[in-house]
Amino acid sequence: MNFDEIIDRVGTHSSKWDMMEPIYGVSPKDGISMWVADMDFRPPKCVSDAVAAMHDHGIYGYYGDDATYRAAIQWWMKERHGWALDKDAIFTTHGLVNGTAMCVDAFTAPGDGVVLFTPVYHAFARVIKAAGREVTECELRHDGAKYVMDFDAYDAQLTGRERMVILCSPHNPGGRVWTREELEGVAAFARRHDLILVSDEIHHDLVMPGHRHVPMSLIEGAAERLVMMTATTKTFNIAGAHAGNVIIADPGLRARFAARMAAMGISANSFGLFMTEAAYSPEGAAWVDALCDYLHGNARLFDEGVNTIPGVRSMPLEATYLAWVDFSGTGMPAAEVVSRVQESARIAANHGPTFGAGGADHLRFNLATPRARVAEAVSRLQDAFADLQ
Amino acid sequence: MNFDEIIDRVGTHSSKWDMMEPIYGVSPKDGISMWVADMDFRPPKCVSDAVAAMHDHGIYGYYGDDATYRAAIQWWMKERHGWALDKDAIFTTHGLVNGTAMCVDAFTAPGDGVVLFTPVYHAFARVIKAAGREVTECELRHDGAKYVMDFDAYDAQLTGRERMVILCSPHNPGGRVWTREELEGVAAFARRHDLILVSDEIHHDLVMPGHRHVPMSLIEGAAERLVMMTATTKTFNIAGAHAGNVIIADPGLRARFAARMAAMGISANSFGLFMTEAAYSPEGAAWVDALCDYLHGNARLFDEGVNTIPGVRSMPLEATYLAWVDFSGTGMPAAEVVSRVQESARIAANHGPTFGAGGADHLRFNLATPRARVAEAVSRLQDAFADLQ
Repeated sequence: MNFDEIIDRVGTHSSKWDMMEPIYGVSPKDGISMWVADMDFRPPKCVSDAVAAMHDHGIYGYYGDDATYRAAIQWWMKERHGWALDKDAIFTTHGLVNGTAMCVDAFTAPGDGVVLFTPVYHAFARVIKAAGREVTECELRHDGAKYVMDFDAYDAQLTGRERMVILCSPHNPGGRVWTREELEGVAAFARRHDLILVSDEIHHDLVMPGHRHVPMSLIEGAAERLVMMTATTKTFNIAGAHAGNVIIADPGLRARFAARMAAMGISANSFGLFMTEAAYSPEGAAWVDALCDYLHGNARLFDEGVNTIPGVRSMPLEATYLAWVDFSGTGMPAAEVVSRVQESARIAANHGPTFGAGGADHLRFNLATPRARVAEAVSRLQDAFADLQ
Repeated sequence: MNFDEIIDRVGTHSSKWDMMEPIYGVSPKDGISMWVADMDFRPPKCVSDAVAAMHDHGIYGYYGDDATYRAAIQWWMKERHGWALDKDAIFTTHGLVNGTAMCVDAFTAPGDGVVLFTPVYHAFARVIKAAGREVTECELRHDGAKYVMDFDAYDAQLTGRERMVILCSPHNPGGRVWTREELEGVAAFARRHDLILVSDEIHHDLVMPGHRHVPMSLIEGAAERLVMMTATTKTFNIAGAHAGNVIIADPGLRARFAARMAAMGISANSFGLFMTEAAYSPEGAAWVDALCDYLHGNARLFDEGVNTIPGVRSMPLEATYLAWVDFSGTGMPAAEVVSRVQESARIAANHGPTFGAGGADHLRFNLATPRARVAEAVSRLQDAFADLQ
């Protein structure tokens, strides 16, 4: 578990490192990639060993009998999240962008509205719009320190055409771990407006010390309309494996989803299945504990550093490795901020407006990289905005 | 390239070996698995090396910049099939069951008819029906030696509700390599009935000596309605990688397909991308040539053996490694044939009726296994039907 090791990813078909120059104009030669949400760390040895075992056996044929795979998922959810789930509730999709799209497809019709609490993970709006549905952006309220929900405002905002709400829990990009009370509020909101509640909990394992993630499946009164989404890809840094789980307790919703899985010919690739089974293990759990400690250290270093820049504010991270930084206090136009970050600091970070309403004047920085790089990024940002000191 | 090596696949999550007992009642302990279409051979070293290289690098993040991947596909299609294609015509789906489903979804509506020339690969009908479309079964005619098409009959059969035809070329399970004239007939049939023409060419590389596959993309007058489907998964035995290519030259069809790819959140896993790029290479090509020779030897051995059984007839294999065996001449009820094959010969083979109209009294045997196993299977079948001698 040497998270400090610098591993060169340039020229490895890495989206994060090989696409930063075409997209952000930041060369990987001297730039720091802090955009797309994967980590510059190897997964735990149990996961790499699963790939090695596949290679050693050498035949990559059709995968059959996923009983041990399903059992591993059940074990992890019970052990790490106190959530007992039915093995037949699990559908494996091609990652959770596909999982989200399958939910939109299965439970809404063209023209329907889907509620998002924005700013939020940009792929939600992308697939909703691509499917000919409408996005209803319910903007999170900033309470001075963090994002909170304002259900009175959202109740007033809804049009009656909404059929689904997608919650990002923990929240990307704000890093919130929603409290039990907040989750009860979301469930009540979904009931009040008769919405299917999709809870994307892909960051549920990446929680900072002192915080505790509550699965929406443990919130009373949610089950009959609930779709849970989880994955090993974010936790264990295996996004390339394209595996995600859509978990549905309600028999009616499960049957509807199953029908669309069959119609779209969705079944899992064997790499994702083998790696997931290996990851959801005691060895995987120990690695995640160490990872969270390391990420917490990175977040502290980053926040303390960038918060010294007048007018710049990094939202306190309760979960995820994604720092959400508000530059509005600098009074600079967004283009000026972006230019200083990309051209002066030579850092590629996600642009806030892609996360929807409330994202203006923000950038999202991925901190899942060796600490020396985080320190270097902080130093470059301080230099790029040195005139504000 | 040691195709004779017996590799134990039992207990490796292999569908072919670990599901034969639950599905066919044939124990892997002393049974021979000849059903699901993957091979008991390792892929070429270049493909395994791609997996090893991923493992050695160790970070399995988001894949970016697929230019070399697309170039490898273009190279293979030109080099092996004389087909020059536009790199932007390529969509990578999660294997070709998903690819077929995406075509049905993109180009037809619920209630529409989709034409299949049956018997044919069972997953076509499965996804068509799961999507709420109708299957129009146009039965292939047996000319005494092989399957042929009877367009006069099909013209009379169509209802006007059909919007698509899916051709399996080369043909699974009949092993036909359709001639240029036959392909021109299919294209004319599609034009006559204004059908989208989906040509599933997943077996295009597995062609027996003396036969030459013609891509539908080379048939004049097809392009404006044509969707080509190809993959490395069958050729190189990497079905677990779940990667397939849907290739669309027509700009209008391409745009419609792209919209549905975005709506369904379909993007490729990195294992499939790395393995495909490695496979479509001179080393991969040399391996395929050796493989086809070996499969040809297996087919000869199998056909000569089973054709000695009175009333049993294996269709001559022009392509694929799937022997299509007609037991109707034995005069036995289908259940008796199945019982002799499964219980006496202890062989798991696909049941003919799952392939649609025309499949009765047939079984499909997968010959892509070390030759000693094929010989043993022949011997067991001869024994199981010895009373007919």
